[in-house]
Amino acid sequence: MKEDTNKTIWNEPTISTEHIFTGKVISLQVDTIALPDGGTTTREIIKHPGAAAVVAIHDEKLIVVEQYRKPLGKTQIEIPAGKLDPKEEPIVAAARELEEETGYIAHNLQLLHQYYTSPGFADEILYTYFTNEVTIGQQNLDDDEDVIVKLITIEEADAYIASGDISDAKTLLAVTAWKLLQRTGSLT
Amino acid sequence: MKEDTNKTIWNEPTISTEHIFTGKVISLQVDTIALPDGGTTTREIIKHPGAAAVVAIHDEKLIVVEQYRKPLGKTQIEIPAGKLDPKEEPIVAAARELEEETGYIAHNLQLLHQYYTSPGFADEILYTYFTNEVTIGQQNLDDDEDVIVKLITIEEADAYIASGDISDAKTLLAVTAWKLLQRTGSLT
Repeated sequence: MKEDTNKTIWNEPTISTEHIFTGKVISLQVDTIALPDGGTTTREIIKHPGAAAVVAIHDEKLIVVEQYRKPLGKTQIEIPAGKLDPKEEPIVAAARELEEETGYIAHNLQLLHQYYTSPGFADEILYTYFTNEVTIGQQNLDDDEDVIVKLITIEEADAYIASGDISDAKTLLAVTAWKLLQRTGSLT
Repeated sequence: MKEDTNKTIWNEPTISTEHIFTGKVISLQVDTIALPDGGTTTREIIKHPGAAAVVAIHDEKLIVVEQYRKPLGKTQIEIPAGKLDPKEEPIVAAARELEEETGYIAHNLQLLHQYYTSPGFADEILYTYFTNEVTIGQQNLDDDEDVIVKLITIEEADAYIASGDISDAKTLLAVTAWKLLQRTGSLT
């Protein structure tokens, strides 16, 4: 297989946009785009305000929350995360979500990763911060939030991954980066 | 901070479901759910058929594709992936997508991870397979697909992460797992 070195990628120019839905968290639009052969097709696009998450290590354990995920119809164990408020800096949102959901206060947050969760159909970007310096504050859940806070070892994280209790991208990436840190001294 | 050990999580019973949109890739519904205090709220839910991806290593390089992502308005470098066809086994989809997008044929695919990309609003699950045994077949893109195939080293992957050219969850997780493999001998 030869690599393609002289090719450029078609940039899918928009012919029209149909706005389908605007909700509390997401909105949906369908863009009609031009294809290189002169034809057209559609792209279904979810708009999301972005979110922030925290990989917080305390006493060599990862701080996680168990919560019900309606789209999955089951509870999941995940690192603390939540969507950005309007104009909120991601690092501020990360610290806020950690304290609201778990009662822990993060110090010296460092940006670990920023990534799109599902670039085929959504613009959601997730900023993930790391800290191993936390102190105890005050949990303060949103009215429609209900979580159980846990501190887990790498071995417990692996057991939760095997059982499917941990099965979301951000928490798998957090655990994998934490293993790199423990085994090699580097998070990346 | 004490851990909560005697608590159970509220399972958000559905009161009603409003179907908003059914598209080629995703559908959207809004569920009204009961809250513990007797009130109600809504959950916006994207249904997705699921997808499969491949971490394919050839000559100690990762096989990736550069493609335009309309929701992001830019090109991205990602591991090969695509959504499951109706009733298709994820491992079959993974092998099919690798060959269609890159022309490489995977041998001895092993399930590396299965995870939800964005469990707060979507049920999309992504099955990710690993192989370091590939042979050369025939690229066969969908009519509306346009990609550039690349083989990259870990150092090149890190440079693409730093520049933002690699910035999706599945590819970051693939690169992080590949680093674990190279540095510790284990993918997980």
